Amino acid sequence: MTFISDNAVGVAPEIMSALMEANRGPTMPYGADDWTRRIERKMAEIFEHEVRVFPVITGTAANALSLATLAPPYGSIYAHEEAHVMTDECGAPELFSGAKLRPLSGAHGKLAAETLDRALTRDTTDDVHQVIPAAISVTQATEAGAVYKPAELQAIAEVARRHKVRLHMDGARFANAMAFLNVPARQVTWEAGIDVLSFGATKGGCMAAEAVVIFDPALATHFGHRRMRGGHLVSKMRFVSAQLEAYIADGLWLKLARHANAMAQRLAQGITAASPHLPGAKLLHPVEANELFVQLPAATIAGLREAGFAFYDWPAEEGTAIRLVTAFNTDAALVEQFVKTVKDLAGRAT
Amino acid sequence: MTFISDNAVGVAPEIMSALMEANRGPTMPYGADDWTRRIERKMAEIFEHEVRVFPVITGTAANALSLATLAPPYGSIYAHEEAHVMTDECGAPELFSGAKLRPLSGAHGKLAAETLDRALTRDTTDDVHQVIPAAISVTQATEAGAVYKPAELQAIAEVARRHKVRLHMDGARFANAMAFLNVPARQVTWEAGIDVLSFGATKGGCMAAEAVVIFDPALATHFGHRRMRGGHLVSKMRFVSAQLEAYIADGLWLKLARHANAMAQRLAQGITAASPHLPGAKLLHPVEANELFVQLPAATIAGLREAGFAFYDWPAEEGTAIRLVTAFNTDAALVEQFVKTVKDLAGRAT
Amino acid sequence: MTFISDNAVGVAPEIMSALMEANRGPTMPYGADDWTRRIERKMAEIFEHEVRVFPVITGTAANALSLATLAPPYGSIYAHEEAHVMTDECGAPELFSGAKLRPLSGAHGKLAAETLDRALTRDTTDDVHQVIPAAISVTQATEAGAVYKPAELQAIAEVARRHKVRLHMDGARFANAMAFLNVPARQVTWEAGIDVLSFGATKGGCMAAEAVVIFDPALATHFGHRRMRGGHLVSKMRFVSAQLEAYIADGLWLKLARHANAMAQRLAQGITAASPHLPGAKLLHPVEANELFVQLPAATIAGLREAGFAFYDWPAEEGTAIRLVTAFNTDAALVEQFVKTVKDLAGRAT
Amino acid sequence: MTFISDNAVGVAPEIMSALMEANRGPTMPYGADDWTRRIERKMAEIFEHEVRVFPVITGTAANALSLATLAPPYGSIYAHEEAHVMTDECGAPELFSGAKLRPLSGAHGKLAAETLDRALTRDTTDDVHQVIPAAISVTQATEAGAVYKPAELQAIAEVARRHKVRLHMDGARFANAMAFLNVPARQVTWEAGIDVLSFGATKGGCMAAEAVVIFDPALATHFGHRRMRGGHLVSKMRFVSAQLEAYIADGLWLKLARHANAMAQRLAQGITAASPHLPGAKLLHPVEANELFVQLPAATIAGLREAGFAFYDWPAEEGTAIRLVTAFNTDAALVEQFVKTVKDLAGRAT
Repeated sequence: MTFISDNAVGVAPEIMSALMEANRGPTMPYGADDWTRRIERKMAEIFEHEVRVFPVITGTAANALSLATLAPPYGSIYAHEEAHVMTDECGAPELFSGAKLRPLSGAHGKLAAETLDRALTRDTTDDVHQVIPAAISVTQATEAGAVYKPAELQAIAEVARRHKVRLHMDGARFANAMAFLNVPARQVTWEAGIDVLSFGATKGGCMAAEAVVIFDPALATHFGHRRMRGGHLVSKMRFVSAQLEAYIADGLWLKLARHANAMAQRLAQGITAASPHLPGAKLLHPVEANELFVQLPAATIAGLREAGFAFYDWPAEEGTAIRLVTAFNTDAALVEQFVKTVKDLAGRAT
Repeated sequence: MTFISDNAVGVAPEIMSALMEANRGPTMPYGADDWTRRIERKMAEIFEHEVRVFPVITGTAANALSLATLAPPYGSIYAHEEAHVMTDECGAPELFSGAKLRPLSGAHGKLAAETLDRALTRDTTDDVHQVIPAAISVTQATEAGAVYKPAELQAIAEVARRHKVRLHMDGARFANAMAFLNVPARQVTWEAGIDVLSFGATKGGCMAAEAVVIFDPALATHFGHRRMRGGHLVSKMRFVSAQLEAYIADGLWLKLARHANAMAQRLAQGITAASPHLPGAKLLHPVEANELFVQLPAATIAGLREAGFAFYDWPAEEGTAIRLVTAFNTDAALVEQFVKTVKDLAGRAT
Repeated sequence: MTFISDNAVGVAPEIMSALMEANRGPTMPYGADDWTRRIERKMAEIFEHEVRVFPVITGTAANALSLATLAPPYGSIYAHEEAHVMTDECGAPELFSGAKLRPLSGAHGKLAAETLDRALTRDTTDDVHQVIPAAISVTQATEAGAVYKPAELQAIAEVARRHKVRLHMDGARFANAMAFLNVPARQVTWEAGIDVLSFGATKGGCMAAEAVVIFDPALATHFGHRRMRGGHLVSKMRFVSAQLEAYIADGLWLKLARHANAMAQRLAQGITAASPHLPGAKLLHPVEANELFVQLPAATIAGLREAGFAFYDWPAEEGTAIRLVTAFNTDAALVEQFVKTVKDLAGRAT
Repeated sequence: MTFISDNAVGVAPEIMSALMEANRGPTMPYGADDWTRRIERKMAEIFEHEVRVFPVITGTAANALSLATLAPPYGSIYAHEEAHVMTDECGAPELFSGAKLRPLSGAHGKLAAETLDRALTRDTTDDVHQVIPAAISVTQATEAGAVYKPAELQAIAEVARRHKVRLHMDGARFANAMAFLNVPARQVTWEAGIDVLSFGATKGGCMAAEAVVIFDPALATHFGHRRMRGGHLVSKMRFVSAQLEAYIADGLWLKLARHANAMAQRLAQGITAASPHLPGAKLLHPVEANELFVQLPAATIAGLREAGFAFYDWPAEEGTAIRLVTAFNTDAALVEQFVKTVKDLAGRAT
């Protein structure tokens, strides 16, 4: 399993303890419980802003419901062509919103402000034949493992404001991005114009917990109805909220993410060091969160698998490539072993 | 909380242990894990029939996805006017299926075969102005706490067959119904023509786990896509499946349901005994599962609340009524205390 | 064909002439033409109110698009259980709005203010499990051929206002209702709280033309997009608008409706006169527009068909019944012949 | 107006006569009339194949309903990035089908078989995260005025067959394509694997009439319900069918299209002759139907407008461009005048 995915791992012990703790006595269902109330308050502290928080149990639900809140059925939503909402949600954003998703390209999974500006300028019209540009969705960290810097997001926000479209952030790996950036959370969310954030926690160490964080209360009015209509209102909600509470308490989310990121950095470093001896070897994207996309000789990839490491092959323009994902509980010794194996294989290659 | 709802209680210890157990090492995500494989096999044993099993985390998701599998967008689905799919899912079945839900009335939350036959005969036509009858959804146990007997279901199945419509069972409290009936599960499912069952487990003692059980494999072909498109594919699926596994292992589901049912019976007995002294007091529906709907004098209701008992008021044709729900962990002593309080209040009333 | 339906007849000669006239030279497509501009002005005169007018070509499109404008996907729309939107549009209102349609009963196809008040009071809640009451749709004239009086509509409007829901009028036979009422159009539309009117013209004598008339401009903002998204924006729009223009010019619409209504009155009178000699014969609903629902002995019905008259059988609580529909061009001589045949059959019956 | 669009012109006199003719006496509504029956037979002759024919009144309705018939809600539909279904229907295909539209690029508005093969190979997977490739939509003639040759379509059909996806043809300008190709209609429809054809007639000279032509009867089973549910079942259907009947009788459709194509050819010839003297002037696409996309100096464009000619500006990679559309009734003298004006402006330019 080692580097397959951050959802192939289990649950952090702190989260498990919180679940045990939450299982004491009865409480009102559907979110009218203390855990749910507390996470709204705690999130407001983290973001230094009034927020409305809606726990759900999948990132796809968080994204699709968020986008349904931001775009009408005759509207359009811009996202990177490789974004999860675009390629990996089997049309959930379309089902929930009715809107049209418009793919845009960009390096390392990022949308550039100029790309968005060009697309929005092109697509803004009074002609009823065309859907109305309504929202942009950015992924933080991106599907390529890169992280938007505050200035990049602010440039996008400026474009959004000018074209009067809303901004959503898919933060399935928001913790990894924040651990990398080391800035206040507000700088890459509401200060950067984000209206709604899918705050991911499952990949970060929870069992099944994501939070939709809404920075503009007016947008939250009917979110509860949309969530219910999507079948996403968990009855024993405290057990979702308890996960989230433990995850964001005392900076656990950042601590776990820092570990995952550090393991990714170590892998990157080891691979880079060995690459002069591996023809064509290179990192396809900057390693800023907990994912690496690595072009490697086919023989090296085969060697790694023979040595017992697991990971996905990844499409590459040329040659062969793999994806490595680290997690909150990735074993440092295993990482060293991987690095050593790469080095050995590189030695053999030359 | 005491009698508020079976989702206001916590999680059975066996389920909690199973979650702990499942948190060992990595596994493939999205249901490609051993837990998920095992529950499909175990369900096949329980139902003595080949099944396809799809875990989800809410009953609404189970119902809405099941119905989407059974009815086209230009079709209609018949259900009791008080059914959960009709009144408590904020339109989820319509969102997922596109179909039209048609309410029918019937005593104790049940659909009668003749009522269905009449409606289906009336609504079957070649006229494209009308939606095409496509499915029936029955709730077992019903929203009124009653249980369909095998013969009642078989009569409905016969109507369904004759009119060529599919049959869905909302089994949010399937365990309570089975504990009451004490017949093989096949008799009230596929032998009674059920095509798809929403097998509830959350109310029965799980944290958040329901299973869509499909008896006709042809219907399962694209269920996985529909589930994903609804945002209902949990990434760390083993933790949903582990709950289900523990729940159905060694008859735990029936044991827990038997307790809840017994507590409901004891309440019913106590209330009935006291009712000659409580003007207008009566059980509004037969008590066959874990819910009671009780007409009581307003003063008695107030007295119960003063004594610390919690429950919902319930609409009644005349007078005042309440709903009492017992659960897998309802304290027998509390039940006795409730019965005693009713008796005392009855004494005072006369 | 004689009394089959008002859409089994052809097109009024004035409408045909208008189509010929409109076929001169080129014009901008999609409604940016003079005909479309003129009907908006003319409608404003008829209703003595600012209006936005959107021509479409079916009543179902007019209704479904109107309702989509008034109700969100998590909302509900109340209508009579026999209303066209409820039973004869194959789910179009649901497809276009996403909302849930809630059937209510009432005499002669009418919704009573008290019925609505009761339903809205029952259904208004903060509970996200339930869809939010959003709109009421009334049909003028009703499917039973009855006409809402201004006071009845005002009572409904008062209920709507109190419960903060919007009001739609399905006016497929609006002309027949207006011809019967003989009051200013404003009294039964915006003065009676109607937000959006489906102004029917096809049944009144056009070829295929209906107008969505919006009294609150704020509701019109994205109607054009919804119409396009439904495939209901006709490219050579002038030919739809030209029909509407001729239809509403110089009171043609009312003149044609008055004829249809008069023919219906004559039929009602003749049948009533003969009914003492026809066991069980009676009008099932007041005859106020151009439809009659008549309970008649089976032998009389058969006799009428033998005499060459065409009409639909209609469901009746007891005995046998038929529907008779008159149109703008119903031949008075044929009506007399029908009346005479009924009289003859009545003579024979006694 | 002259070259604005083929829907900015009126209706061919033969169509108008047919409408007059059809307005005689009553007939059954909703397509149970002789006109509708006759066009199905006539279409079967034209295509030399059994067909089911469903008249509608807009091309968007024809396309969206056709695609809904070919793709499930969790499916995807491939079309050219400039296709009408992709950019000009405000999301109607998505509303009606629920499916995801996937844009592909290609020269002159055409999809190449290899492009489709690559995309389908890339997108075919067992992973439920991705929508299932379900259909391809080709436009004949394309939005760029080019025409697929039989061999090109057969190559696409071969790809479709191999990947088990269905084929739709948007034939808004099918007549112009057929007039250009001069082959039997079967060669570019069912023989080339087309399952459903949107047979356009409005642009060709009708008032508002399109026909969905289904070559596989199994696909037609519920088309009637889908059409009704979309609000696209015209009650006085004979008036739509009468247009179609006149249009396809005695080859009128091809005769009208040949005129439009000839006018386009004459324009292309004139512009090409003048282009050596107009810096950068060129035809951006082959002129094969009734549309020209012409790059011209800004001064030339301004000069043409000053001379009274009307047309749309068109986006061009470099420089300035316009679109010219001819129609069934484009005046040959006007075309000559346009050509002369271009020549004069070219003279002045040098």
